[in-house]
Amino acid sequence: MKLNVTQENLARALSTVGRVASSKTSLPILGNIFIRTDDNQLFIASTNLEIAISERIGGQIDQPGSFTIPARLMSDFISSLPNDTVKLQLEGNSLSIKSGRYTSKITGTSAEEFPALPDIEPTFTYQLNAQDFKRAIQQTVIVASHDDTRPVLTGAYWHTHEGNLYIAATDGYRLTERLLTKHDGGDHGAIIPASTLQDVVRVLRDDIETIDILFDDNQVRFLMGTIDITSKLIDGKFPDYRQLIPNQSDITASLQKNDFNRIVKIASLFARESGGGVTLETVQDEQVLRIQSIASQLGENTSDAEAAINNDGKITLNSRYIIEALSCFDAGELDFSFSGKLAPSVIMAHEKNPVYKHVIMPLKS
Amino acid sequence: MKLNVTQENLARALSTVGRVASSKTSLPILGNIFIRTDDNQLFIASTNLEIAISERIGGQIDQPGSFTIPARLMSDFISSLPNDTVKLQLEGNSLSIKSGRYTSKITGTSAEEFPALPDIEPTFTYQLNAQDFKRAIQQTVIVASHDDTRPVLTGAYWHTHEGNLYIAATDGYRLTERLLTKHDGGDHGAIIPASTLQDVVRVLRDDIETIDILFDDNQVRFLMGTIDITSKLIDGKFPDYRQLIPNQSDITASLQKNDFNRIVKIASLFARESGGGVTLETVQDEQVLRIQSIASQLGENTSDAEAAINNDGKITLNSRYIIEALSCFDAGELDFSFSGKLAPSVIMAHEKNPVYKHVIMPLKS
Repeated sequence: MKLNVTQENLARALSTVGRVASSKTSLPILGNIFIRTDDNQLFIASTNLEIAISERIGGQIDQPGSFTIPARLMSDFISSLPNDTVKLQLEGNSLSIKSGRYTSKITGTSAEEFPALPDIEPTFTYQLNAQDFKRAIQQTVIVASHDDTRPVLTGAYWHTHEGNLYIAATDGYRLTERLLTKHDGGDHGAIIPASTLQDVVRVLRDDIETIDILFDDNQVRFLMGTIDITSKLIDGKFPDYRQLIPNQSDITASLQKNDFNRIVKIASLFARESGGGVTLETVQDEQVLRIQSIASQLGENTSDAEAAINNDGKITLNSRYIIEALSCFDAGELDFSFSGKLAPSVIMAHEKNPVYKHVIMPLKS
Repeated sequence: MKLNVTQENLARALSTVGRVASSKTSLPILGNIFIRTDDNQLFIASTNLEIAISERIGGQIDQPGSFTIPARLMSDFISSLPNDTVKLQLEGNSLSIKSGRYTSKITGTSAEEFPALPDIEPTFTYQLNAQDFKRAIQQTVIVASHDDTRPVLTGAYWHTHEGNLYIAATDGYRLTERLLTKHDGGDHGAIIPASTLQDVVRVLRDDIETIDILFDDNQVRFLMGTIDITSKLIDGKFPDYRQLIPNQSDITASLQKNDFNRIVKIASLFARESGGGVTLETVQDEQVLRIQSIASQLGENTSDAEAAINNDGKITLNSRYIIEALSCFDAGELDFSFSGKLAPSVIMAHEKNPVYKHVIMPLKS
């Protein structure tokens, strides 16, 4: 194997692909990057057996070949070089790397010892606007569970419903649902690990316009320009979450996101003793959303935000959940709705047919 | 106590002063901020008994008084408020805080229970350019020791010598010396805790032009605009470090800081196995500074930087020490000098009479 690539392309690809490689596994070769020449390209991949990431970059290939090298050292070294041509050449069990006045040899392992990279024969394929998809993922996976005792809740539920494609997630205390697009293919449902979706969001560059998403029965692949991510799906049945989203609420406060955010953040400071619980009250007379928190040892707080209120009511929520929910919305007017102390509350953009719903279950107070 | 201040001034002062308050002490009141009205000002202070920070801000004082309140809650709350007038009023054992639509009560403790803040009757006073002083501190304390078994090395040595004022530090492996200014007062030496100097650097704002520094026998006070820091000195005798700075070296490489930095950073990647050791070689024929590192398992590296070289030589140094040393210099040409494998190496700006010297002891190789 002998080839030339640019430092810029190689450094970027190593940084993208290297994040999946880990030296903390029982299989040391998973800490390596796999490289292979393909016509006039260099194919660079890593896997942890659950997820595989690969990228192709252009290069001048003088001799074809393949090899694997320690991911972290290779990535740190290449990213430290100035932007110039990098010459890679396999010499025995080392990769020789030369660029300008910098010369290194990095000891590696034969490509034959690297685990096979996943193949997929898609039964469902989707094409979406990449940046809208990225936002949708950020809006949903934030509530996915980190508790491995119910694996289905550590994923996001990709599914069709009445002619639309949705993604949803829940940890039992809150849930999110985002409409992705219209859908007129067959019925389809799959649970994608939240960690995979977070990796997709991290590597999805701002200049990528469309993303292709391919499913077979137990895998999903994301095609994003020169980068592919392939992951196992989570086996199991996602809970019937739709019944938990209130169709209608008795009480709605319409207010600016930034005002809502500020009063909750302030109230949360006084809610540390009480596990984050804060009481929200809609005051129709004054047209304010009032929030109260009491820390018996430290003090108490009451803050108001101007809001359009249609009814008086009170509900107690975890302030951390509200702050995380608000981080999923752009600035602008929101509707915060609930129906008394025991029913779930919903936050949506103040608009007709909002595509995104964020539901928070109340605390008993 | 009853007064009005602006949110902006109060938030800034609480953030400055609050860093010293800690709830992790056996004396809970040290986690509180002390506040006291002084004519038309509010005096805000905290202490951990080693160091005290205070700031004065302007305000409209309606009723004088003093009080102490939990530092973190107060600081987090005030910094979350919009920029508006904040009304503070003492009500029993609580401070009532109102600003616009935000109302809080924070439970506090009587000011009488707060430890006395330090007084100083200066025997030596200095006035320096504040921003030059800040840079000098950053350049020296970086090598102060973190090992409490030799307390004098955890400080920086402020001292006069042959008509000049210097500050110096060493951890036994490297040392720094910075000329501060000419000095024609009497002889003076004091060891200031490095942590105090780091606090001074952190709170010294960019718009402060001069700093006054006052010493008595066992304390130092820094006056920086509206902010004062007072700290205990470290008792003991600082080592006679001057004898360790080579007056002359056989070998000098003059090169750009950025080139030097890059070759050391790259070499350090391959030096992780060997505790960071890298070998630097001046090659007079080629007029390069060459750096080599070998990681037996991982590979090896050789990098060159263009340099003006007056002699051939080799020395082995800890790459982390070189990287930290280079962070103390501005971009531009540096002189890196040494005299064989066993003598200390020195880095200085390539100029006549450089004010700053950074010495690194060699590793045995």
